[in-house]
Amino acid sequence: MSAVVSLNQEKEKEVGVIGAGLVGCLTALALQKKGYKVILFELRQDPRLKSTKEKNLRSINLAISDRGIKALKYVDENLAKKVLDKVIPMRGRMIHDSKGNQESQLYGLYGESIKSIDRGYLNQELLNEIDIINKSGVGYPIEVLFGKKLINLSFLGEEENPTVTIVDQSSHQEQIFEFDFIVSADGAFSATRHYLQRYVRMTFKQEFIDTCYIELSIPAGPGNSFLIDPNHLHIWPRDKFMLIALPNQNGSFTSTFFSSWELAESLNTDTKILNFFKEHFEDGLKLIGEDNLISSFKNNPKGSLVQIHCNPYNYKGKAILIGDAAHGMVPFYGQGMNCGFESLRILLEMLEKNNFNTEKAFNQYSKERHQDLEVILKLALDNYNEMSHDVTSIVYLMRKKIDSFLGRLLRGKWLPLYTMISFRGDIPYSEAISIEKRQQNIIKKLEAAIFVGTIYAAVKISKYFASKFVK
Amino acid sequence: MSAVVSLNQEKEKEVGVIGAGLVGCLTALALQKKGYKVILFELRQDPRLKSTKEKNLRSINLAISDRGIKALKYVDENLAKKVLDKVIPMRGRMIHDSKGNQESQLYGLYGESIKSIDRGYLNQELLNEIDIINKSGVGYPIEVLFGKKLINLSFLGEEENPTVTIVDQSSHQEQIFEFDFIVSADGAFSATRHYLQRYVRMTFKQEFIDTCYIELSIPAGPGNSFLIDPNHLHIWPRDKFMLIALPNQNGSFTSTFFSSWELAESLNTDTKILNFFKEHFEDGLKLIGEDNLISSFKNNPKGSLVQIHCNPYNYKGKAILIGDAAHGMVPFYGQGMNCGFESLRILLEMLEKNNFNTEKAFNQYSKERHQDLEVILKLALDNYNEMSHDVTSIVYLMRKKIDSFLGRLLRGKWLPLYTMISFRGDIPYSEAISIEKRQQNIIKKLEAAIFVGTIYAAVKISKYFASKFVK
Repeated sequence: MSAVVSLNQEKEKEVGVIGAGLVGCLTALALQKKGYKVILFELRQDPRLKSTKEKNLRSINLAISDRGIKALKYVDENLAKKVLDKVIPMRGRMIHDSKGNQESQLYGLYGESIKSIDRGYLNQELLNEIDIINKSGVGYPIEVLFGKKLINLSFLGEEENPTVTIVDQSSHQEQIFEFDFIVSADGAFSATRHYLQRYVRMTFKQEFIDTCYIELSIPAGPGNSFLIDPNHLHIWPRDKFMLIALPNQNGSFTSTFFSSWELAESLNTDTKILNFFKEHFEDGLKLIGEDNLISSFKNNPKGSLVQIHCNPYNYKGKAILIGDAAHGMVPFYGQGMNCGFESLRILLEMLEKNNFNTEKAFNQYSKERHQDLEVILKLALDNYNEMSHDVTSIVYLMRKKIDSFLGRLLRGKWLPLYTMISFRGDIPYSEAISIEKRQQNIIKKLEAAIFVGTIYAAVKISKYFASKFVK
Repeated sequence: MSAVVSLNQEKEKEVGVIGAGLVGCLTALALQKKGYKVILFELRQDPRLKSTKEKNLRSINLAISDRGIKALKYVDENLAKKVLDKVIPMRGRMIHDSKGNQESQLYGLYGESIKSIDRGYLNQELLNEIDIINKSGVGYPIEVLFGKKLINLSFLGEEENPTVTIVDQSSHQEQIFEFDFIVSADGAFSATRHYLQRYVRMTFKQEFIDTCYIELSIPAGPGNSFLIDPNHLHIWPRDKFMLIALPNQNGSFTSTFFSSWELAESLNTDTKILNFFKEHFEDGLKLIGEDNLISSFKNNPKGSLVQIHCNPYNYKGKAILIGDAAHGMVPFYGQGMNCGFESLRILLEMLEKNNFNTEKAFNQYSKERHQDLEVILKLALDNYNEMSHDVTSIVYLMRKKIDSFLGRLLRGKWLPLYTMISFRGDIPYSEAISIEKRQQNIIKKLEAAIFVGTIYAAVKISKYFASKFVK
């Protein structure tokens, strides 16, 4: 499973991959290694060209964890190593309260970590890997076409091969490509999905949550030192809004402010922004710096957060949606990319199991993957409350402690949910949530037993004392 | 409100209307009469051209009722008259049981009718009306551009005026148009909606129901006579599937078969089709004819049915979705077009009330219209059960009779739901459903009272008889 050798019996097959983001690039690499001829289309210009370097609108640092790493390794062990060389491990959350106190809450039972990485950097590494593969002369080269907008998708003739119409963003010339099949990783606002819906009776839902994010930054200290612990994901939870910060290799932190749109839009003058941060994030403000805060807050775009649900994800063996195009999610469980990469790994495994019969594999994927995707979408949404509020609640912390205690006591037989999602890529999301439900029931029973036991003991004790002293 | 005079203070404003279907054409006409300069774009070729006459894939005959007529009259009294000249009134459902018996169930309390009309015919009439307006020289002519595909929509600059990129389907040349605002009526698979979602945090859901439809037809009898009663909507309800038929002016009926996809796809040979119809629709089969049935069943496309939910419908005062693009619905309440026309009327009224300030009007529309649209979407879906199953249930028929009885008894104070939806365009959908809930509670209490009263009487009577005869 880990060493990828070409098992593909039908080497001449041509595949279009739509979208050269993280999942699209990895898909192109994976399919090339399976022996397919791949053309990779991207709407934007090459992000590595200085002339076209655009403001990356999606630069929340990513936390790569077990599912993402597993998929990278599945595609290429060396690629995984290269990527992991450039990450910063985060072993827990660092909670900053309003008085400036910090408290560490570890993610794993044994010091496991999720790994902070810059999205743009990872994307460029994946594109570089394509160049390396192409230069190696092994297999068909991957053709990467930037600045190409998909404006139509149809499935024509007896074969129903996907026919993709592309417009060059500079010349405005149309080009038409026919493939054996396409894999679309063109993001939450997927154009492919739009056209696919003319062929597939696809249940589809997109839901925006009333949360806006604004990207901020904490500069590095003297000599590229970290001003706060680099091995934590820092959170300033304030219930209805929060600030977070993830470390970068150069000593800086990428920070993000989350709040309701109403609140974010009401902070529209320098004074309002400053006063708000002074009141709620005094230590955060010192780290960010006043001028830096004001300029970022006013100039950086306000981002929206959307959840995407589809079912099914494919049209026969001819087209399939993957990544955010199929299951875009809010970032609060740090699973967006990890889940997208995992989806690719699972899809590839199904292709292998079905002897590269795409119709069987794609149908199986739609059928079996759906429940896992629905679970992680729900977890991602629910985790906003956990991050912004629950982490400060006594009941939450007590439960978490019992959970960790049992996790260590019953090593391997009791798995905290976070451990299963982030550090146990071998457990499907849907199975993780079933195990968690069972465990939570046990904890609740334990709590009830402790409650009853305590009351019983209290009654006994007071009776004893009563009998002793009151007569 | 009925006579349309231009109240528009800003006569130079240019509007793009996307989609020249029923709602799009009526929108173009309405806005022209308000003094706007309108360009109307349509993906397909002019349906009136013989050379391009395509198979109309959506030829379920429509039932126009009060809300649709009200909107037509609002735009143009004469146009409404022209349209109503060509309809066939249907005063009730004619239920065909499996033995060939027919039973009429009237729609209204006083012989009100919904009106059968061919979708294609109505569309052409609306296009002809545009030609008439253009020739009249009154106001700005409406420019109608056929064969134009929308491939981008953006809102650029300070003004954020909508910029629409169009590709000509023959020459493949791109053209760019800037408008003051656009109204999009480009159907359930709206391309505009796709691009709009990059600007609007739009909650969006599309749900396919597991029902497939196949268009059939019942030819006219000798001398263009009707073979069954022309003033009914004929239904052959068979629980999990059904056949319906709506009259045409030439003596024929447009008939539609609805079933699960599995069933429809299993009827894949001449024999299977024939045997199925012989078993379940014996009288229907005689009307359609065996050869006609087989050729229609095999050659006509299998249609899918989708429900579209959005919220909000607009981007500031710059773009708004209307009709199926905003609220596509299954055809079972006969409200799709009626609701789309009503949406237009309400939007126009809000424009007038807000002195043609589109931002205020569009925001108000999104806010106030949403609850009504959600109600009719739910009613449309629920009505499949009513048409295919409930109409044969004794409890349903009893309740319906009580409902009609009270409706006639308490004239105007008690309104059956169907009456409110189809014949009382002055009652918003959401209000109709509130009234219905109140009335149904009363009916349930009545039933309970009758039940208790009956038991009480039975006990009294049996006690009386017991005391008389048993001692």
